[in-house]
Amino acid sequence: MREWIAGHLGRKGQHVHADQVLITSGSQQGLDLVGKILLDPGDLMVVEDPSYLAALQTFGGYEVEFATVRSDDAGMDTDDLAALLKKRVPKLLYVIPNFQNPKGTTLSLERRKALVRLAQEHRFVILEDDPYGELRFRGVHLPSLASLDDQGVVLSLSTFSKTLAPGLRLGWVTGPRALLKSLTIAKQATDLHTATLAQRATARLLETFDYAGHIQALMPIYAERANAMLAALEAHMPKGTKWTRPDGGMFLWVELPGGLDAARLLPRAVEQKVAFVPGAPFFANDQKPQFMRLNYSNRPPDLINEGMKRLGAVISDAL
Amino acid sequence: MREWIAGHLGRKGQHVHADQVLITSGSQQGLDLVGKILLDPGDLMVVEDPSYLAALQTFGGYEVEFATVRSDDAGMDTDDLAALLKKRVPKLLYVIPNFQNPKGTTLSLERRKALVRLAQEHRFVILEDDPYGELRFRGVHLPSLASLDDQGVVLSLSTFSKTLAPGLRLGWVTGPRALLKSLTIAKQATDLHTATLAQRATARLLETFDYAGHIQALMPIYAERANAMLAALEAHMPKGTKWTRPDGGMFLWVELPGGLDAARLLPRAVEQKVAFVPGAPFFANDQKPQFMRLNYSNRPPDLINEGMKRLGAVISDAL
Repeated sequence: MREWIAGHLGRKGQHVHADQVLITSGSQQGLDLVGKILLDPGDLMVVEDPSYLAALQTFGGYEVEFATVRSDDAGMDTDDLAALLKKRVPKLLYVIPNFQNPKGTTLSLERRKALVRLAQEHRFVILEDDPYGELRFRGVHLPSLASLDDQGVVLSLSTFSKTLAPGLRLGWVTGPRALLKSLTIAKQATDLHTATLAQRATARLLETFDYAGHIQALMPIYAERANAMLAALEAHMPKGTKWTRPDGGMFLWVELPGGLDAARLLPRAVEQKVAFVPGAPFFANDQKPQFMRLNYSNRPPDLINEGMKRLGAVISDAL
Repeated sequence: MREWIAGHLGRKGQHVHADQVLITSGSQQGLDLVGKILLDPGDLMVVEDPSYLAALQTFGGYEVEFATVRSDDAGMDTDDLAALLKKRVPKLLYVIPNFQNPKGTTLSLERRKALVRLAQEHRFVILEDDPYGELRFRGVHLPSLASLDDQGVVLSLSTFSKTLAPGLRLGWVTGPRALLKSLTIAKQATDLHTATLAQRATARLLETFDYAGHIQALMPIYAERANAMLAALEAHMPKGTKWTRPDGGMFLWVELPGGLDAARLLPRAVEQKVAFVPGAPFFANDQKPQFMRLNYSNRPPDLINEGMKRLGAVISDAL
């Protein structure tokens, strides 16, 4: 399976050997192991604002200090990061380059290059978390941060959770050998090894299953659903509501107008059988209440439209 | 599966509800999660001398200070512990009551009661690690520490790794609800959840499989192998060699005579196609070189006898 992963990454321009692939119990465990080997209480860590909430929880458990960097439709703002680096250099920077969680936005090629350059110059580690990168339904694949790095400053995480099944708990970390060695020791102290039944079953599957074809077949469905949600938002959201326009992945990010608090709307939406994730916990420091994360990957277009209609009514009522 | 585990523990006198069972990725993960919620750098932690080396590695990762307590054929010496507690009280005490790793010895009933009493009196948490308890081939089952505790000072770990298959990575933690709640949050930040494929397969198996009968059928084989090793040690070890006499589990513990260093004998034994685990890393503080752990569960009696004959020759040669 490690050889398959190395080959798979190689075809996307990220050249690693199989011995630079550590299998983890989902990429969530990769987050924890990186925290375990790199982070001490009080260390400075840079995250996007907003960022993946379960990553913030994991790193928060290591008692780091978070510095947040602004993001827009082209991902993490590297000018904002460069300004921060003039004052303080973090030990670790965490970024989700493709179809970010929660925003659904993608880091531009120019900013990818700038980010790797900054890490090389200031000597901090980039943790590139890429669970969604394969789920692109518009535009072209961009090179990973690891593939742009020739100085070993990038650790990369990915997973089979979004392409095969989350219940397998099969993810991986790749990166420079010195860090991989520390991660391997930490992994052994944490759970000895990842479940071999799931590893063997998946390795066997990958020998014969058309993985690329499977994803290719999924993408029109994801595109249709994303487009359905975008059209339904246009049709049903009250004026002043804003949202992102993802080129892949599973999420988009909505900003409510009129000072509304998404968390307070949730019970009313759930009464209408529409659920969303309130956005505040995705902010590492100053939690902004007016955001929500919507998922379009799970329901067909007609239900997405009905759901957005009901959600729009709840928001309009609250306004 | 949680209900099955609660029922299973209940039949052994440890009464917990299913909501006090947290499924972990092997009991090794239970060790890590307990460390994560309880241990800060510099905290004092009590362990047996010697103790399970991968537990020492896990807790060592949390930068604790270890205090070791003497043990003999009846397990951890609670008088030695009581003397220690007059000076300093630990945050956590780690003990393997049944067929201890690496010694194979079992904590006596009297000492179990004394240990729980000391924890209640001095208010520290006992972490009871019981991967081997079901593998008893001589004598009667003794009550778990948790079943002797009415004040919520005991967390218990166990696993299907030694009774079904280690590759499943299915273990569990039980204990007081307040601690279970913290462990559950830590578990979510660590790997979200344990692999559902392995959980479902095992839950289904437990519905129909005669688990108790399976273990009952294994025990004569373990007994035969343990007895074969004890007889072979008697026949082939040079004078002055000592060893423990387990009533269950997989290991016994050998002390070499004449100031021999077990680690230095290993290459010579491996040349003879006999492997053992050198004992030094099982000591948290002062690593003693003259011990080795032997495993009798994996080979039939005739091979065990041949192996002990070769090992005895290697030791005699070195003397």
